[in-house]
Amino acid sequence: MTESVERDVRMLAEAAKAASTELGMASFDQRNEALRAMAAALRARAEEVLEANAEDMDAARADGMSASLLDRLLLTRDRVEGMAAALEELAALPDSLGRVLEDRTLENGLRVQRVTVPFGVVAMVYEARPNVTADAAGICVKTGNACVLRSGSSALRSSVAIARVLADAAESAGLSKGSICIVESADRASADALMRLHGVVDLLIPRGGAGLIRRCVENATVPVIETGTGNCHVYVHETADFAKARAIVMNAKTQRTGVCNACESLLVDRAVASAFLPEMLAELAAAGVLVHGDAVARACAEQAGALAQFVDATEDDWGTEYLALEISVKAVDGLDEAIAHINRYGTHHSDAIVAEDAAAGERFLAAVDSAAVYVNASTRFTDGGQFGLGAEIGISTQKLHARGPFAADALTSYKYVIRGAGQVRP
Amino acid sequence: MTESVERDVRMLAEAAKAASTELGMASFDQRNEALRAMAAALRARAEEVLEANAEDMDAARADGMSASLLDRLLLTRDRVEGMAAALEELAALPDSLGRVLEDRTLENGLRVQRVTVPFGVVAMVYEARPNVTADAAGICVKTGNACVLRSGSSALRSSVAIARVLADAAESAGLSKGSICIVESADRASADALMRLHGVVDLLIPRGGAGLIRRCVENATVPVIETGTGNCHVYVHETADFAKARAIVMNAKTQRTGVCNACESLLVDRAVASAFLPEMLAELAAAGVLVHGDAVARACAEQAGALAQFVDATEDDWGTEYLALEISVKAVDGLDEAIAHINRYGTHHSDAIVAEDAAAGERFLAAVDSAAVYVNASTRFTDGGQFGLGAEIGISTQKLHARGPFAADALTSYKYVIRGAGQVRP
Repeated sequence: MTESVERDVRMLAEAAKAASTELGMASFDQRNEALRAMAAALRARAEEVLEANAEDMDAARADGMSASLLDRLLLTRDRVEGMAAALEELAALPDSLGRVLEDRTLENGLRVQRVTVPFGVVAMVYEARPNVTADAAGICVKTGNACVLRSGSSALRSSVAIARVLADAAESAGLSKGSICIVESADRASADALMRLHGVVDLLIPRGGAGLIRRCVENATVPVIETGTGNCHVYVHETADFAKARAIVMNAKTQRTGVCNACESLLVDRAVASAFLPEMLAELAAAGVLVHGDAVARACAEQAGALAQFVDATEDDWGTEYLALEISVKAVDGLDEAIAHINRYGTHHSDAIVAEDAAAGERFLAAVDSAAVYVNASTRFTDGGQFGLGAEIGISTQKLHARGPFAADALTSYKYVIRGAGQVRP
Repeated sequence: MTESVERDVRMLAEAAKAASTELGMASFDQRNEALRAMAAALRARAEEVLEANAEDMDAARADGMSASLLDRLLLTRDRVEGMAAALEELAALPDSLGRVLEDRTLENGLRVQRVTVPFGVVAMVYEARPNVTADAAGICVKTGNACVLRSGSSALRSSVAIARVLADAAESAGLSKGSICIVESADRASADALMRLHGVVDLLIPRGGAGLIRRCVENATVPVIETGTGNCHVYVHETADFAKARAIVMNAKTQRTGVCNACESLLVDRAVASAFLPEMLAELAAAGVLVHGDAVARACAEQAGALAQFVDATEDDWGTEYLALEISVKAVDGLDEAIAHINRYGTHHSDAIVAEDAAAGERFLAAVDSAAVYVNASTRFTDGGQFGLGAEIGISTQKLHARGPFAADALTSYKYVIRGAGQVRP
């Protein structure tokens, strides 16, 4: 069984590889034309997609899936329209390919250019959001990459239906057959096989929870971009403007909780803890936030009458991404302890200092080893759209190739293109 | 035993991690000062290094190491001086850190900059060239990265001696202790442990043969840059200028054979094989090159009286990197077969077409999936120095982050630095 899954996944990826050469040479217009055809096909065949989704929804309900996950899984006519519109938006974006990054003519007359090119075959492994299928296929077509998609099991029927519609449309628009592939098995072996196709898959992007990311990092032999988990901190320096600090903490914690750029931990300088924390903890309690705090935080919660929303923090709390109305709170002995704590327990995603002292802010920006570092702003801004990068594929928490929010440009590599007239090396 | 090696390697890497925060904030002048101090210390303590090397040489001779490997291992006063001079050259190069790649002010007033930063901890695993120790430590100091070096066993005493001299000098010059670390064990477990320190080691660069690279790709959980192996092709198109083609093939094959950008395979259009190959094969035979050829090549070798230097090629030959005076030769049915052959059997390093027809050249440049693609020039130019990039760390054959010759800039990542005045996300 596992062997046959491995063989099927390899055949699929090799089909994508075979398609990738021509796809990589498709013109800007051809790729955009294909994206528009894919959007039109999604609209025209929406019924097919919705029927597949209804089957996924029935199975998920029978399995007792939670309401929030069911909502992620659900497709409606509006949501299909949203996917189609997103493909059309992609078609309107500038080209990421063929950008000349360097161009020099050597003394011997050789012209050496460094030019952006597609990766070749990009694999995306994701979980229960069927719309990722269209996003991923779209951004790969835009950047001239063949893709191999591997959806989570609960969204499999929906994802396969979407991928079929898109693959048919891309082929009709003139792209090579095999440009958009989907693994039609969601068992664990298919993901494991995909991530070990060294030499066939050029890049793997997992999109999902910490478990999926960890599995890719542990098992992949192909290059991976790690995305996602965010144990983000707000650190309130002794020179902080308390009103700014409270607004930033409330925004970063409560504006949206299930996202990777939400704040999960509040650090506060011991020197100002008793001045700052009581009001802060009262505000958090009023918003329904459960505080996991240290002894200093407990004393302040008591003073604020907020003990009903307080539990003592354990060591584990410093490393926990709650993704909920919960936050850890800790007093620290100044900037250096805050930096060390964040670098130790954080996930190198997004971290903020609130400080009026500019030198403290600059040291924090330099020393905190995270994809996005903030002075006096909410961590919730870490987002491709907010940063003006266009539709993001994910937020990378690694440092190789792409860090922080990354968009279409990150799906390109480059090659050196050298034109000569018979030069040989002396 | 293995467990204690793992523990030692982890402790070493964690020391490097601890050093990396301050090192990453060291000024350009401080880092260059340290490089000059490292060069001076190598000169002052050359005797210590040469004594350690003499022990490595004795052991290697006793083990029956080949003359060419002994020469790679040997250090002399001149070679130590060469390492010192290279460190001083690094000190004179511009800074790779702090480059502002993007800078925008959003409508809400947030200033978002994308700025180059060090990786943090860079691990280099290499084989029997002790000079790599100084190169690697130098380029890491230049780019503000702490390094963990792991030398091959035959060069271990030399490498440890060099690393100690450099680490002492860097510390005396004010860099954090732990900035330059070397693993003092060369058993396999130490390399395996190093490549699995996810979250501690930020980047792994193996430098060595295909076996080492494969082991890293198979086992690493940390991000890797694959370097090296080069099964490079020269393809002679039917429109080739034969004199240019012969000169390019002879240069790419024989100018230096043990290097990754040397030509290992010659493809020739069937239509011109009988016109081109006899003289080519005679010239290769005269230079002592053994040809592994197909039936067309055999007929031409016979015609050229070059059968003494000819053997029939097997399927394995198409994928072989000889690194010697040997070459595979194959007739192909035109451009598309040549492209498909190279993409299938090559190592995505450097490949050339010889053609007077510009359209054929351009299609080859676009379709061949290699780090460096050439029209009418020798593959031997793929080199950081030749391309004007400065001292190269290696030649990457993967597409993530760095491709082709890469130098100091490739040892940097970036972060988003955001400065606000209390902004929160609406």
